Amino acid sequence: MTVKPDAGSRLLDATLDPQYRAPFPSSRKVYVPGSTPSIRVGMREIAQTPTFGADGRPLENPPVTVYDTSGPYTDPEAAIDLSAGLPPVREAWIRSRPNVEMAGHRHPGPALLPARNRYRAKPGTRATQMHYARRGEITPEMEYVAIRENARWQEAPDDLKRRHAGQAWGARMPEEITPEFVRDEVARGRAIIPANLNHLELEPMVIGRNFKVKINANLGNSALSSSIQEEVEKMLWAIRWGADTVMDLSTAEPIHDTREWIIRNSPVPVGTVPVYEALERVGGAPEDLTWEVFRDTVVAQAEQGVDYMTIHAGVLLPFIHLTARRTTGIVSRGGSIMARWCLAHHKENFLYTHWDELCEVMAAFDVAFSIGDGLRPGSLADANDEAQFAELKAQGGLTRRAWAFDVQVMNEGPGHVPMHMIKENMDKQLEWCGEAPFYTLGPVITDISPGYDHMASAIGAAMIGWYGTAMLCYVTPKEHLGLPDRNDVREGVVAYRIAAHAADLAKGHPAAQIRDNALSKARFEFRWEDQFSLSLDPDRAREFHDETLPRHGEKLAHFCSMCGPRFCAMALSQQVRDEAARQQGLEQQAAAFKEGGGELYRKV
Amino acid sequence: MTVKPDAGSRLLDATLDPQYRAPFPSSRKVYVPGSTPSIRVGMREIAQTPTFGADGRPLENPPVTVYDTSGPYTDPEAAIDLSAGLPPVREAWIRSRPNVEMAGHRHPGPALLPARNRYRAKPGTRATQMHYARRGEITPEMEYVAIRENARWQEAPDDLKRRHAGQAWGARMPEEITPEFVRDEVARGRAIIPANLNHLELEPMVIGRNFKVKINANLGNSALSSSIQEEVEKMLWAIRWGADTVMDLSTAEPIHDTREWIIRNSPVPVGTVPVYEALERVGGAPEDLTWEVFRDTVVAQAEQGVDYMTIHAGVLLPFIHLTARRTTGIVSRGGSIMARWCLAHHKENFLYTHWDELCEVMAAFDVAFSIGDGLRPGSLADANDEAQFAELKAQGGLTRRAWAFDVQVMNEGPGHVPMHMIKENMDKQLEWCGEAPFYTLGPVITDISPGYDHMASAIGAAMIGWYGTAMLCYVTPKEHLGLPDRNDVREGVVAYRIAAHAADLAKGHPAAQIRDNALSKARFEFRWEDQFSLSLDPDRAREFHDETLPRHGEKLAHFCSMCGPRFCAMALSQQVRDEAARQQGLEQQAAAFKEGGGELYRKV
Repeated sequence: MTVKPDAGSRLLDATLDPQYRAPFPSSRKVYVPGSTPSIRVGMREIAQTPTFGADGRPLENPPVTVYDTSGPYTDPEAAIDLSAGLPPVREAWIRSRPNVEMAGHRHPGPALLPARNRYRAKPGTRATQMHYARRGEITPEMEYVAIRENARWQEAPDDLKRRHAGQAWGARMPEEITPEFVRDEVARGRAIIPANLNHLELEPMVIGRNFKVKINANLGNSALSSSIQEEVEKMLWAIRWGADTVMDLSTAEPIHDTREWIIRNSPVPVGTVPVYEALERVGGAPEDLTWEVFRDTVVAQAEQGVDYMTIHAGVLLPFIHLTARRTTGIVSRGGSIMARWCLAHHKENFLYTHWDELCEVMAAFDVAFSIGDGLRPGSLADANDEAQFAELKAQGGLTRRAWAFDVQVMNEGPGHVPMHMIKENMDKQLEWCGEAPFYTLGPVITDISPGYDHMASAIGAAMIGWYGTAMLCYVTPKEHLGLPDRNDVREGVVAYRIAAHAADLAKGHPAAQIRDNALSKARFEFRWEDQFSLSLDPDRAREFHDETLPRHGEKLAHFCSMCGPRFCAMALSQQVRDEAARQQGLEQQAAAFKEGGGELYRKV
Repeated sequence: MTVKPDAGSRLLDATLDPQYRAPFPSSRKVYVPGSTPSIRVGMREIAQTPTFGADGRPLENPPVTVYDTSGPYTDPEAAIDLSAGLPPVREAWIRSRPNVEMAGHRHPGPALLPARNRYRAKPGTRATQMHYARRGEITPEMEYVAIRENARWQEAPDDLKRRHAGQAWGARMPEEITPEFVRDEVARGRAIIPANLNHLELEPMVIGRNFKVKINANLGNSALSSSIQEEVEKMLWAIRWGADTVMDLSTAEPIHDTREWIIRNSPVPVGTVPVYEALERVGGAPEDLTWEVFRDTVVAQAEQGVDYMTIHAGVLLPFIHLTARRTTGIVSRGGSIMARWCLAHHKENFLYTHWDELCEVMAAFDVAFSIGDGLRPGSLADANDEAQFAELKAQGGLTRRAWAFDVQVMNEGPGHVPMHMIKENMDKQLEWCGEAPFYTLGPVITDISPGYDHMASAIGAAMIGWYGTAMLCYVTPKEHLGLPDRNDVREGVVAYRIAAHAADLAKGHPAAQIRDNALSKARFEFRWEDQFSLSLDPDRAREFHDETLPRHGEKLAHFCSMCGPRFCAMALSQQVRDEAARQQGLEQQAAAFKEGGGELYRKV
């Protein structure tokens, strides 16, 4: 059934443009089973064409399996209906937890979306992954992410497993991720699995510095633009290109409905900044915010299934004057809202004073804290200043307190930081926040690149990811200028996939180099189709190639338009290799001959 | 006069599309005079609008002067005629050198280009910047680049001069670049001024790690695409967006004429890889190359005015077998050509065996060597391997030998290198090559990003620039896929301007942060027009802003479409600042009151 969005975009098309569902070139969805039938971990398997040896005989190249964030959408077998949401794949896991209870049905939500069962921890208990982990229990989510992180890399052929030793700065990534390893990392707070009891549609993932570096894509409307339809499509576009989580940062009505549509259709964790909705509830004036309104907002979002929430509880009253002489003051929306509240009432931040109560709510639904960095620097001039680090230290205290409630935590960081000052952020966060996962915006490493800040920040993101940041919050080309559209989302996500992957490589993640090795082998062997399909963005790679050499035959060509046939280094180099091998063969024969005494006929 | 290009594109339009000549927004060309009237250093001055204080009174913001690579093209006063070339601004300097002689007229070249005087060192003498520097002579070129490097930064107001201490890894950038400092750096080989006696149109620039990090843009046709017109326009586009040098890597006829048009119209140094033309001269088979053909090619290019040449003299016969087991063999075009020659003849590389003769040619015209990295890694798997470092060490020996001839030298490096292995390249180059300027391609930090390799390599470029690389060779989005077009050139150049600037910031270049500070101040004060005009790409910044808020009035708005008016952190933060200042004032009064004894009426 197809439903047209009405003027207010409260309805979505039930059918989806094929571009969101098309499998990637040469790729198929595979499911790796876990210990029970309900654990089926989707991955993408990329087939390769054979290599043709000197004798013209084909040598098979095995398929390459890659981590896949796109969910059921790229599985042609999956029935997708946006108006019904994704199937509640986690429901059986949640129901089987003795300390979880059904708490009625979720409010039916906008228009056609079906009401779903609503869960929460039984009174007096906690239902977080950290809670179970600390009790020594391995949840299906933990097993799921273990399988997902491995992505079958151990099955790759040895030549593709060749890799450099990394420089991990203290991270320890095992050769094989076991469910027990995941449990242990979650138990000690070094990793989180953002997985609200009410986000039943979720394919679990893990965030921590001993796992693959993850990326987040921000979505959300503002008062000046966008519709629900657009935001859901941005979410689909973001996960297609590789977003591990999305944040719905909508600040304009319909906030609740936009989020509902996103969560019900999202296979990745969804984060929010609840103060935006709370502010709308009080009519837009920060000074009118109250703890009660905020708490009610958080509870409503938790019941809806939000997996992690940015809470600016580290913006403390005494820190605010530290920003007064900054070049760009406070550039976090949440941070500036809380700062205004604090100043207006001359009281301590109510998120800080009510932290324990917040922890209880989080523990009841398993919402992870993403402790906000309301005082992050918005310009190089303000980088690593007293305000920023005062808040980071406060984040550390809040982190430990949340852990006392078994609540999962990550810490938000950076902003604008020049390259040589990035590592200090990571080092202090590790020390002050007890190795809780760090989650950073960029950092942008110069202020003069509006229109290109996805690039400028991907530089900083790659570096801080290498140093140990667990998740990188993307920046789009529209940063500082306007609201990103679908194309900006793709540019931002791919830039950050590059940064995250570069970080994995530099840390020495055992599986990271396999795809690089496969692509480079394909490149050297002029297997153009394989080069495209192994790329982060196969469509773009093909499109760029075809701009100058569009014909199919040219994808079999042993050159491209960069150098043309005569100057192709790859082709020349293959000839060099053949020639060197021939000559080395002769030399070895000659050496053997000399070793043998240099006589034409060896003595027997 | 307008001349239409003929079918073979041997003629160029004498008039130029206005997009190549339009001054940047709010910008004007200024010329800073040197010690003689012939020294006039062009810079770009960006005007700013006033800040409106709380009382509504305007406070002037001074203009910001920036380094300008665009040459006379962005000066509306300059008469530009591509068919005549730029004026020979250096000719008086060259003629005044006692050891330089006129050696006839340059071959008149294609079609309309006027013949120019041709210069070379008198027999038995050397006419390089290094030669003069070592004799203690400060040339006009040295004075020119000193003025250019300072770019009047010392005149900036103190609040814009705020900066972080950098981490320079041994580079020493003085507060003021003096001509004597330039002379000293050139004398000891730590910097070069690529400035062929016959590139009279050049605006000199300096490459060395104690100066601003520079970037190069590659141009050039291949057998499959492009025309002279397109290549000249790419050059103009590259310098407009910030290329400090260009390389003409044409591999297809008309090689000589393409280069002639580029040099005559280029205010930036032009580099080449002469083996490409030499190979065309012998019909395309590497084994048919001879020293004599190569030498003649180099002499012809030197007479034409090429400022630096990539010479793959470090690809030595014993190193070639080291590439045999590589994932991607030899990926340098020049490297693979020389490797094939070596193997075919089983002889040492003739560039190596004739090095002294090459040095004599270079010294006679002041062509700088860019010693090629023919064995650079083409994949992560091959990074930092024995072949690569064997060649780097050989480059060091060649560098010292060239210095014995007073020839200026830089060394080419990287390719594909994961982040954690980048620094080793820089450290070894500094050690083995005596601090000669390092000039690196990227490095690309992953192999899986075709279509986005400008970004993936800008990450590596920023890092290696920080560590000490003097010039970064750009990579365009088409790398590995096809020949870049004009738009790819812009994307690549801006990506690399970001990388070079990020490196300057991280090294702590004394002037680097001024533009960031100015832009961030403009951003915080909602001076949108200033934010655009201070950007690396003002057109892009404006275009992105206007996609969501196109009306002029909205450029005065205290918000943008990212957050809308209510959620604008910047606007909130300004209110926070005002409020904090007010409260601090009250607190100070309160504190003073307490200090004073807390009595309402102080004792006299």
